[in-house]
Amino acid sequence: MSHEIWAFESRIHEINTADGNGSSSGVVLGIDGGATSTTCVCMRSGIMIDNTEVYDPKSLPILGRAVGGSSNYNSVGEVAAKNTLEQVMAKTLEKSGTNRFAVRAICLGVSGVNHHKDRQWILSWLRDIFPDHVNFLVENDSVAALASGTMGKLHGCVLISGTGSIACGFTNDGRESRAGGAGPILGDLGSGYGIAAQALTAVVRAHDGRGPQTILSENILRSLDLSSPDEIIGWTYADTSWARIASLVPVVLSSAEAGDEVANKILHDSVLELASCVKAVVQKLTLCGEDGNSAFPLVLVGGVFENNKSWDIANEILKCILKDYPGVIPITPKVEPAIGAAMLALNSIKLKGIFNS
Amino acid sequence: MSHEIWAFESRIHEINTADGNGSSSGVVLGIDGGATSTTCVCMRSGIMIDNTEVYDPKSLPILGRAVGGSSNYNSVGEVAAKNTLEQVMAKTLEKSGTNRFAVRAICLGVSGVNHHKDRQWILSWLRDIFPDHVNFLVENDSVAALASGTMGKLHGCVLISGTGSIACGFTNDGRESRAGGAGPILGDLGSGYGIAAQALTAVVRAHDGRGPQTILSENILRSLDLSSPDEIIGWTYADTSWARIASLVPVVLSSAEAGDEVANKILHDSVLELASCVKAVVQKLTLCGEDGNSAFPLVLVGGVFENNKSWDIANEILKCILKDYPGVIPITPKVEPAIGAAMLALNSIKLKGIFNS
Repeated sequence: MSHEIWAFESRIHEINTADGNGSSSGVVLGIDGGATSTTCVCMRSGIMIDNTEVYDPKSLPILGRAVGGSSNYNSVGEVAAKNTLEQVMAKTLEKSGTNRFAVRAICLGVSGVNHHKDRQWILSWLRDIFPDHVNFLVENDSVAALASGTMGKLHGCVLISGTGSIACGFTNDGRESRAGGAGPILGDLGSGYGIAAQALTAVVRAHDGRGPQTILSENILRSLDLSSPDEIIGWTYADTSWARIASLVPVVLSSAEAGDEVANKILHDSVLELASCVKAVVQKLTLCGEDGNSAFPLVLVGGVFENNKSWDIANEILKCILKDYPGVIPITPKVEPAIGAAMLALNSIKLKGIFNS
Repeated sequence: MSHEIWAFESRIHEINTADGNGSSSGVVLGIDGGATSTTCVCMRSGIMIDNTEVYDPKSLPILGRAVGGSSNYNSVGEVAAKNTLEQVMAKTLEKSGTNRFAVRAICLGVSGVNHHKDRQWILSWLRDIFPDHVNFLVENDSVAALASGTMGKLHGCVLISGTGSIACGFTNDGRESRAGGAGPILGDLGSGYGIAAQALTAVVRAHDGRGPQTILSENILRSLDLSSPDEIIGWTYADTSWARIASLVPVVLSSAEAGDEVANKILHDSVLELASCVKAVVQKLTLCGEDGNSAFPLVLVGGVFENNKSWDIANEILKCILKDYPGVIPITPKVEPAIGAAMLALNSIKLKGIFNS
């Protein structure tokens, strides 16, 4: 625990949950930790969320929100990831005019959390920072993203494609399954990083005579302010942060929209890759029912699906999935994943209440 | 320059080129800097190498040799790369019983040197370390590898596949061309790293239901002492040094030899990828002559081609190339690439002699 990060608490004399009403019920924190940025929101805990309703974010009892850098420790390392998470939680509580003793539950959805060990590592330092009564949920960021589309109900499938990509599904009886999400070294081809790295590769291949010419060369060089494809190698390895590479996705989209075959092939391959992640999850969990036609929600989240114009990646993925699973119901969340995480934290208190009564 | 590295020189009172004969002609240094290790050799400079002869390494006037870590600065960073190169040169001179003032020429073949800027960066600190009279050649490590197969003659094509991969060619009139060698983010699929990363990806895909089952899963987990494919993600990102990943190539080879289809596909794809690099270079330089049938040497170097048993990667590549270029003459060098670099350093003095006379 960093004492400096929590110094603000000594300046808050009263626990104040903004409207003076929540002090008895306390607050929850929801965190969405991605490979590019980390968002935390603080919500009053004395409310009921109806999963069947779509909420206007403005109507939710959000007390504070803060944003930090990447908290994927596979990408930035353990020390930086822990610091980012701790700072973003402290900042959110400070902005909410409250402190750690008012927190009843925290749900962290963090990219890179794939295994029991990852979860244990986060819990180990989280318990040192917060009081004993706090309820912790540590999940992959895909869980928060799913909850943001289903308003806190863990049922259905979520597909994230931001800097990284993953598909994740839950059944009503608590079974869970995942596909993808193994990061850029392990074939994360439909992610923003994967799409951009393939585009950079295509430029190198065109330049050294192994691949077809492509307007990606001209467009990427202009976007990076480089004068020759030779310089792409130096640019790439000067800083291999995943988010920096992934920021080239808009150039791939605009090149594909301009009719470039190489850019189109990269996007089509990415669509197949992302659709195959969803299909693997749906099949393993039989989300489509025994007849294959049952309805299930598919929440689509991430930068790769945003600002799409005539080339609509989410729509192409949906067309692929509909062929096999006609019951798929696409959802574009109206609230951000951090709010999904906060709703899961709220639900965890309700469940605890039921078990304790 | 690090004064500590060169402290040994104050202990050498006389310039001594081992046999007492070379003191007037001095020495040359040849360096082969790869993504895994860096080798330096020191050779007496007063000898003539006949390019048409194949030398027994024992008959060459090697005075000393030293080995260090990676000097690919894209992989380990500029500071570590410079330190490794400086240390390995000092160690070699110390072992040879000589010092910097006896050096007449140095040829560095360093992986990651792809662009004029890379060359300038190495020259900038090299000039600070060595006396003004020293001749410097800074090249990609593929140039040293080619010279090791052609005994210092820069003609033909070399294909390296170690941790990284690259094809590089030279014509008699000094034209040069390259393909590949852009590192793992930029599609270096036929390299040791590329082969191993594809195998790790195949294990993850089999585990999450996107890909076929493969004995790579069992074999890689055993080799890494892991108990579940889930743990592969943590292992991969715990330390993403390219050489650590590439060390799994023997597991891919043995799995393919045992008949595993996934491992076989990875190796076949890698063969096509490496052959396409060679073909791109041969075509751009017309190494095969105008009729396409002329003879040219193809030097094959690197860990991926070593210890092959029934699955012979070099042989499969050769079969691919022979279809298009029947004049290809495969060469497996009898001396190491660092000696190739030393022979290029020797030649640079001879050329200087010609131009100065």
